[in-house]
Amino acid sequence: MVAKNPSLSDLAADLRAGQRRALARAITLIESERADHRAQAQTLIAALGTNKEALRIGLSGTPGVGKSTFIESFGLMLTQMGKRVAVLAVDPSSTRSGGSILGDKTRMEQLSRDPNAFIRPSPSQAHLGGVARRTRETIALCEAAGFDIVLIETVGVGQSETMVSQMVDVFALLLAPAGGDELQGVKRGIMEIADLVFVNKADGALKSQATRTCADYAGALRLMRKRTQDPDGFPKAMTMSALETLGLAAAWDTIFELAAWRKDTGVWQSTRQTQARHWFHEEVRQQLLQRLTRDPALHDKVTRLENAVANGDLSPSDAASQALADV
Amino acid sequence: MVAKNPSLSDLAADLRAGQRRALARAITLIESERADHRAQAQTLIAALGTNKEALRIGLSGTPGVGKSTFIESFGLMLTQMGKRVAVLAVDPSSTRSGGSILGDKTRMEQLSRDPNAFIRPSPSQAHLGGVARRTRETIALCEAAGFDIVLIETVGVGQSETMVSQMVDVFALLLAPAGGDELQGVKRGIMEIADLVFVNKADGALKSQATRTCADYAGALRLMRKRTQDPDGFPKAMTMSALETLGLAAAWDTIFELAAWRKDTGVWQSTRQTQARHWFHEEVRQQLLQRLTRDPALHDKVTRLENAVANGDLSPSDAASQALADV
Repeated sequence: MVAKNPSLSDLAADLRAGQRRALARAITLIESERADHRAQAQTLIAALGTNKEALRIGLSGTPGVGKSTFIESFGLMLTQMGKRVAVLAVDPSSTRSGGSILGDKTRMEQLSRDPNAFIRPSPSQAHLGGVARRTRETIALCEAAGFDIVLIETVGVGQSETMVSQMVDVFALLLAPAGGDELQGVKRGIMEIADLVFVNKADGALKSQATRTCADYAGALRLMRKRTQDPDGFPKAMTMSALETLGLAAAWDTIFELAAWRKDTGVWQSTRQTQARHWFHEEVRQQLLQRLTRDPALHDKVTRLENAVANGDLSPSDAASQALADV
Repeated sequence: MVAKNPSLSDLAADLRAGQRRALARAITLIESERADHRAQAQTLIAALGTNKEALRIGLSGTPGVGKSTFIESFGLMLTQMGKRVAVLAVDPSSTRSGGSILGDKTRMEQLSRDPNAFIRPSPSQAHLGGVARRTRETIALCEAAGFDIVLIETVGVGQSETMVSQMVDVFALLLAPAGGDELQGVKRGIMEIADLVFVNKADGALKSQATRTCADYAGALRLMRKRTQDPDGFPKAMTMSALETLGLAAAWDTIFELAAWRKDTGVWQSTRQTQARHWFHEEVRQQLLQRLTRDPALHDKVTRLENAVANGDLSPSDAASQALADV
């Protein structure tokens, strides 16, 4: 199919050769909502196929925990090891537009200039389903472009973590030292999906506090059920200082150890298959729902029925039957 | 609509009069998978309307924590207070059939003979979507039959907790005393939805251990983010002994206090509305997916596409488009 479209064919070849500009263009195509762009994007992705070798790491952390500093230091360490690193930002609540590119590149200044790194900010998009598809497809493009590590960054304040955890091989949570009972408002669901908790800023005056915070989270992780598909000692909490680049190598070793264990035991492969099935069903659901919402008359009807259910005038089952009667 | 069907009309009247036999018959109608029964069930539910007064309590606990003893003691205390109590069991993994009725009634012997109580075991059904609908509709029937409290019991080992949490006003987790690091394998997600943690068996030799377990969970609950829609001190952990009927009154007072606070602040009403909207969308999704799976040819196609996605031969988006091409 790509052969029929010379520009797509060139794009695929340039992208496979690892050209960052081609990758950026392909992602822009994926992010477009124009129907013809969507068709081209699907053709491109199908032509590129899947590359199962890249390590996909999810990283969550609320603003202020030092996420940019961490990604900058961690990414540079990896590129110095000869790895090619792609960084994708996922923020469904973001209303940032063009300015965000500058923003993301400014906050990771050195990494953005590294020829072995590629940084892509989050597009402004309100719809979580759309963000999921765009992120998944962008990961596939980065893998086709030969990146060894794809780091997907989220803001740690919503459902985006659960979504990202369904796309990655390893999920890490970055925290700042905190004291007292209520540790910096970590969403309960995030603790549930984290393979690793990194307590950042273990430097200067905060060092001892970081150690205590780390112990608290290690306790909380132990208290919860250990996943049967984890090696001994995981999920794990560690301290680090992205600013002083302390603990970054240990963090990488730990991620690598977990990934290697999962590959050896087949957990890696089975998780990816489960994730793919999940996204297939999610896509079916999204595309079906789109049919309901694209038609304005149908959309009004669904809204009316939803309100009737909320007010207790109709049962969910009854309302759903009515909503789908003409579909 | 009910008027057109004399037997349904009688059933509705008997049910509204609080007759337990009519309630049991109506639930059997709801559980049936026959299309004509389904239509009758929908008509009945629409005719009965919704009663927003009953307090819906979710109760989760793994086998061995003393759930039956708790429900028996707690239920009898409530009926002695003049309340009418319905107990529903939700266990999507259950393969129990007719025998379970005897089982559930045996394990709550006194309560099952109490004229102000109604116990309904889980039907054997593999499909979570089906269990959700059946449970929701059974709750509506119990409310129409004038029950003051509907207690929905789950086994604490799967996705059924999340489902039940979307149907109830208050969610409680029952635990047994435990020691050491890994406290009895509580699923991480359950801690996330629990309003209350009851550490049972705080009697005899286990008493001091129960106190320690309670403190551990209180710490874990505090460590996680406090929901903004909670009064001070919630989520809360408490000890009790269902066997010695100690702490049951305190448990009820605490549930009542939380429910009253939520009613006063409007959280109750807004939560129920959000839940209703959720179930409407879930029903739309289920009914759409049923169309895909009911047709054998279509079902085969979807399975083939899903496997292609799992093997990396197709992207989820592409496969979903193909699956829906003929729908």
